[in-house]
Amino acid sequence: MADIGFIGLGNMGGPMAANLAKAGHAVTAFDISAEALESAREAGASTAKTVAETAAGREVVVTMLPAGAEVSEVYRGEGGVLSAAAPGTLFIDCSTIDVDTARAVAATAAEGGWALLDAPVSGGVAGAAAGTLTFMVGGEAEAVERGRTVLGDMGKAVIHAGASGAGQTAKVCNNLILAVSMIGVCEAFGMADRLGLERQTLFDIVSKATGQCWALTSYCPVPGPVPNAPSNRDYAPGFTAAMMLKDLRLAQSAAASAGAASPLGAEAAALYTLFCNAGFGADDFSGIMKMIGQGD
Amino acid sequence: MADIGFIGLGNMGGPMAANLAKAGHAVTAFDISAEALESAREAGASTAKTVAETAAGREVVVTMLPAGAEVSEVYRGEGGVLSAAAPGTLFIDCSTIDVDTARAVAATAAEGGWALLDAPVSGGVAGAAAGTLTFMVGGEAEAVERGRTVLGDMGKAVIHAGASGAGQTAKVCNNLILAVSMIGVCEAFGMADRLGLERQTLFDIVSKATGQCWALTSYCPVPGPVPNAPSNRDYAPGFTAAMMLKDLRLAQSAAASAGAASPLGAEAAALYTLFCNAGFGADDFSGIMKMIGQGD
Repeated sequence: MADIGFIGLGNMGGPMAANLAKAGHAVTAFDISAEALESAREAGASTAKTVAETAAGREVVVTMLPAGAEVSEVYRGEGGVLSAAAPGTLFIDCSTIDVDTARAVAATAAEGGWALLDAPVSGGVAGAAAGTLTFMVGGEAEAVERGRTVLGDMGKAVIHAGASGAGQTAKVCNNLILAVSMIGVCEAFGMADRLGLERQTLFDIVSKATGQCWALTSYCPVPGPVPNAPSNRDYAPGFTAAMMLKDLRLAQSAAASAGAASPLGAEAAALYTLFCNAGFGADDFSGIMKMIGQGD
Repeated sequence: MADIGFIGLGNMGGPMAANLAKAGHAVTAFDISAEALESAREAGASTAKTVAETAAGREVVVTMLPAGAEVSEVYRGEGGVLSAAAPGTLFIDCSTIDVDTARAVAATAAEGGWALLDAPVSGGVAGAAAGTLTFMVGGEAEAVERGRTVLGDMGKAVIHAGASGAGQTAKVCNNLILAVSMIGVCEAFGMADRLGLERQTLFDIVSKATGQCWALTSYCPVPGPVPNAPSNRDYAPGFTAAMMLKDLRLAQSAAASAGAASPLGAEAAALYTLFCNAGFGADDFSGIMKMIGQGD
């Protein structure tokens, strides 16, 4: 069991920290929200008053923050993790952030002799609560092995994707494909609806054909064919459109930074921006069927 | 065994007619190419000199033609199928054409008391030769049942998609999703390449995650992860980029005609146009990796 500092107790971080405490780790938690701190205490964690106090003397520091700016500030800012952590502390950043910042913060940590893993997750709020997240991890193999127990106590799978930044890269690549295939599926259903092809028939044909994809066969954006998909509960998330938009913007940022072409990713980001602007950011991302096709 | 007229002996129609002859049907074949007629004779078919002669007195007429204009002309033109066919002949059009023309030709046939099925295929030239095509069929259930034996002798699956035009609709909807997911996969590999994430690692992660799709897991556009995919033979088809572009244009036409939104389909059509214009129309459609990512 490890002595763990946990920074960022939001919708994801809160239940993740709770699962670490439940597994028997000594968890010292920090967030700027008093309410989040109270929940952490109820879940069995100690709480700290500052980032530095959270980081000082821990074996492992886990962070779960909204974006690259917060990650950079929490680690590198005045009174940040790097100003307080003991030698040998392992840093695990579970935030989904841009690849460039992930690498830069890991590089700064490395200058001080620390290992920092980028370990973004898939599985959403439900997976965080159930402890069934999948971690896509970038960093040195030795550090990944050191972090495996702690990550395993928050999830069901820990995948070493490669060097620093590879976890973020794997996540945005996956979610780029997911968004594009989801919109493609919605376009197909919208066309089928208007041309009189039954939804269940289209599902039955495509799910056994070359258009098969997870967005169709596990998360069908029209109600009926996949009973547990968010489309059957008026697109209650699940994984929100706002979160998908965030990931698509990270993918675009990574593509631009690396000189890669991502024309469908750009169009998907534009479509999710329109969908969020129309007031549906809190809906599940499959709810874009309402705009692309004709949702129920 | 049926007395079948077969019109259109191209890369697809040639082997389909041969499979009907091999199954023991009496096949009378027609094409404007003397070479195609000779091949049909070698495969055991009789040949005719005109469309009308091919259609006259048959139980079933099968057509496999390039586009809606040819289908309309062959059925409704002077000396066409409808001018010569006996009452009760079943028409099966296996061409991939626009939904509007498919429905219009079927409606004209129905005025004369004939049933016409739209029965486009998936499976490509290899499936046509091996007799493993999948037929997506639009038309009355009774007519589909009448055609099932003949279709079954050319393929492995006969799916009744719905009323007239539903076969074409199902096919373009499937291929729309296929094209969009294929390009999304290429974008992800292109980004991963430039950000230093190994291709096999991206494949391993996404194939078990929410980005899973047939385009990745059965037809991977980079060499290695799926050994029998065209990417491993320098994108020799398979299913050509030119054929995919044709289907995407049919999808756009159907969407416009029906008032459906298909923004990613439109972008995919533009990208396949660019790829074909760049000289790669005869490559497998997964070869768009050369343009989107960085092909080998």
